[in-house]
Amino acid sequence: MLTFDEYQQRVVAAARRLPSRSVAATDATDLLGLVTAEPLRSRVALPGFTNSAMDGYAVRAADVQGATADAPVSLPVTGDIPAGDTRSLRLEPRTCWRIMTGAPVPDGADAVVQVELTDGGTETVAIRSAVEAGRAIRRRGEDIEPGDEVLPAGTLLHPRHVPALLSAGVPEISVIPRPRVAIVSTGDELVEPGREPGHGQVVDSNGPMLAALAVECGFEVVAMRRVGDTGEEVRGALTELAGVADVIVTSGGVSAGAFEPLKLAFEGSGGFDFVKVAMQPGKPQGFGTLGNATVFALPGNPVSSLVSFLVFVAPAARVLAGRDPRLTTVEARVAEHWTSPPGRQQFARVVFDDDGRVVRPIGGQGSHVLGGLAGSHALAIVPADTTEVAVGETLHVIPLEGLA
Amino acid sequence: MLTFDEYQQRVVAAARRLPSRSVAATDATDLLGLVTAEPLRSRVALPGFTNSAMDGYAVRAADVQGATADAPVSLPVTGDIPAGDTRSLRLEPRTCWRIMTGAPVPDGADAVVQVELTDGGTETVAIRSAVEAGRAIRRRGEDIEPGDEVLPAGTLLHPRHVPALLSAGVPEISVIPRPRVAIVSTGDELVEPGREPGHGQVVDSNGPMLAALAVECGFEVVAMRRVGDTGEEVRGALTELAGVADVIVTSGGVSAGAFEPLKLAFEGSGGFDFVKVAMQPGKPQGFGTLGNATVFALPGNPVSSLVSFLVFVAPAARVLAGRDPRLTTVEARVAEHWTSPPGRQQFARVVFDDDGRVVRPIGGQGSHVLGGLAGSHALAIVPADTTEVAVGETLHVIPLEGLA
Repeated sequence: MLTFDEYQQRVVAAARRLPSRSVAATDATDLLGLVTAEPLRSRVALPGFTNSAMDGYAVRAADVQGATADAPVSLPVTGDIPAGDTRSLRLEPRTCWRIMTGAPVPDGADAVVQVELTDGGTETVAIRSAVEAGRAIRRRGEDIEPGDEVLPAGTLLHPRHVPALLSAGVPEISVIPRPRVAIVSTGDELVEPGREPGHGQVVDSNGPMLAALAVECGFEVVAMRRVGDTGEEVRGALTELAGVADVIVTSGGVSAGAFEPLKLAFEGSGGFDFVKVAMQPGKPQGFGTLGNATVFALPGNPVSSLVSFLVFVAPAARVLAGRDPRLTTVEARVAEHWTSPPGRQQFARVVFDDDGRVVRPIGGQGSHVLGGLAGSHALAIVPADTTEVAVGETLHVIPLEGLA
Repeated sequence: MLTFDEYQQRVVAAARRLPSRSVAATDATDLLGLVTAEPLRSRVALPGFTNSAMDGYAVRAADVQGATADAPVSLPVTGDIPAGDTRSLRLEPRTCWRIMTGAPVPDGADAVVQVELTDGGTETVAIRSAVEAGRAIRRRGEDIEPGDEVLPAGTLLHPRHVPALLSAGVPEISVIPRPRVAIVSTGDELVEPGREPGHGQVVDSNGPMLAALAVECGFEVVAMRRVGDTGEEVRGALTELAGVADVIVTSGGVSAGAFEPLKLAFEGSGGFDFVKVAMQPGKPQGFGTLGNATVFALPGNPVSSLVSFLVFVAPAARVLAGRDPRLTTVEARVAEHWTSPPGRQQFARVVFDDDGRVVRPIGGQGSHVLGGLAGSHALAIVPADTTEVAVGETLHVIPLEGLA
C-alpha cells in the first residue's frame, strides 16, 4: 500500500509539460486559461503616440505662466482635436487646441490644461491656472517601449492580460496547449445518459462527470467512450485514444474482482501499475502510459472517481498545461464529529457553514451515495493517522466550486 | 457624487432574475455554471436494483452461520453474476453465486461474503466467516427513492451534481439561462485587434477584455461592436443590441469631454443616469435600460473598465443568472506603503507575495498603465477615508484569477 503523498508525487513527477505552439494573439477569449511558453515582448511603443490624459486645452506651458483665477491668460482656440484624430497637427506659439482625452497632442504643445481650469471657450479660452510642462500628457512609450516584456513566460492568461496582449503589435503568441483528455467508462452494466436502464443496468454518469471536471479544470475533452468488461475492448479503445489524447481517464475495472477489464488489459504490461493507495475513497488506482498518452485508471464509483480526478489527474494534467499542479485548499474548523478509517487519508464530503469557516460531514461516507456527493461543498482532508475527527479541529479542505 | 456602496447597491437592486427555461438534462457539460430554477426530484429509485457492494459470493446469511477460518462452510457456486448481468436470478438454499461489485443480487440472497473471506473457489467455495443479513448489499432505493429531491432549486451546477442529475431519470431540467452580454467599444480612435493603428489610433483591446471577463464569469457573449463617437451611432448600435442581449456593456464616452457619445445618445433620457462615483479608478459611470436590456456605460480606459465590470456588471449579471451577487474577497496584509485619493474608495492593483498573505502595489496607479494591469494579481480595496495605506494594515482584496 502506498501513502497518498507517495502516489500523488509519483503521478505528478511523471508528467511533462506539453510542447508549445504558436496561436493567433487576436482570439483573446480562446486563450483564457492557457500558459505562455515564451515572454511576450511588445513590437510597438505604448502609448503609440503622445496623447492627452484629460479633456482640456493643449498649450505651451510657457504661454500660460502666471495665469491665475484672478488674472487668466486668454488664448485663441485653433480648433478641436478629438480622440481618433489622425492629422499631424502643430501648435503655434500663443495659441491652443481644444483636446480630448486620448487625442494626439499637437507638435509644439508640452502641456494640457484640464477643462475645469478654464472657461471652456471654443473661440478663445480663458486659462485660470499655470501648468508645468508635461502636465496631463502621456508620452509615447511611457508605459511600454518596443522590446519591453509585457507578459513573462509562464503567465496563466486571464482577461486582465488582454489589453497588453492585443496592444503589443504581436500577431502570434507561443502558448502551451490545453491537455487533450479522453474519458472511458468501463462496465457491461452501463447505458448512455437519457436511456432507461433495465434490470442490472445503470446510467453512465461517471463519464459525463469526469468530462465535466476536465472542462471545469480547463482541459479539452476530445473523446468519450463506454466500453464493456473485456480486456480486448478496453485495450482496443485505449490504443485508439492514445493517438488523439494526452491523458486517458478510465473509470471502473481496477479492483479485486474477477472481471476487472483494466487489469485484464494492462496488468503486467511494461509501464503500467495497479496499486493500492492508503486513502478513502479511491484505494485502487491504475497508472500507466500508452504511446504518448498518460492513462489514469480510476475506481468506478462516482465519489471515488471524482476524488481521484481532483487529486491525481488534475494535478498531473496541470503540469502538462504548464500550470501549478498544487490543489487549492482552505482551512476550516470541524463543527460535527465524524470517523475516518485507520491508516487511510480520508477525503470526506462536507458542507460549509458560517460563511465557509466551519464544515460538517454530509451523507454516508459510503462511496455510492450520489445525494451526498451532490450536496457536498468541499472535501475535507483527514490525515491517515486520524480516526476520530473532533469538533473544533482545523482541517484543510478542497472547495468543490471554482476548481480551475 | 455617490459613494461606491450606494452605486453598487443601486445597480444590483435593479437586476431581476431571468425567466427559467427547460433544457435537456443529458448535456451535462453545457449545464455547468447554471443555476437550477426548480428542485430536481428523482423519477427512479437509486440504486435501481439491489446490488453487491463488494466482489464476493451472494449467500443466505443463515447458510453460513457459524463459519470460521478453522471451520469454513463450503457451498456449491451456481455461477457468476458480473456487473451488467440483466438476468433475473434466484439463489437456491445452501448454494451461492459468485458476484461482482454492482451486480444484481439474486432473489433469495440476503448477504454478500467478500472474496477476501473465502478461498475464491469457482465450483465450490469455502467461506471462512459468518456474515449478518444485509452485509455488503446496497438495497434498491437506499440512496434515493422516487420523488426524493436530488438537487434543490438554486443549485449552481458543478461536475459533482452530474451523477445525481443523470441518474434521476429526468429528461429535462429547469435552469436560469446564462445572461446574454453584448459589448460595445466606443471611440473614433479604435481599430480592430490585428490591424496596425495609425497616428492617433489605438487597438480596441477593451472590447475583447470585457468579452473575456464576461466569459470568465460564466455569461454568454452574444455580440461585440466598435462604434464611432457620435450619439447616433451609439444609439443605433445599442437599440439593435437591446433585442438580443440582457446586458449591454459599453466602454468610453462617459466623462466630461465635448464628444462623449454615450452621454450624447442617452443623457436626459428616461431611465438613464450618468453619475460620478467616489472611487478610483472608475469615477464616471452610466447606467440605464433600453427595452429589456440593462446598459452599463463604463469609462474607457482598460483599468477603469476592468474594475467597473468586476464591481458593477458582474454582480448585477449574477443576479440575472440566479447566482450570489457578492464579490469574492480575501484578506491580505500590506507589505509596502502607497497612497489613495481622499474621499474615494480605491481599487489598487497589487501583487500577492508570501503565498497570498501580503500584497504590494504594482505599476503606476495611472489608469492607462497596461503593464501594471497585466502584472497585477488582485485589486486591493482601500476605504474612501484612507489616504495612506500603511504597512501592516489588513485589506480586503479581489483576486483576479478564478473569477467565476
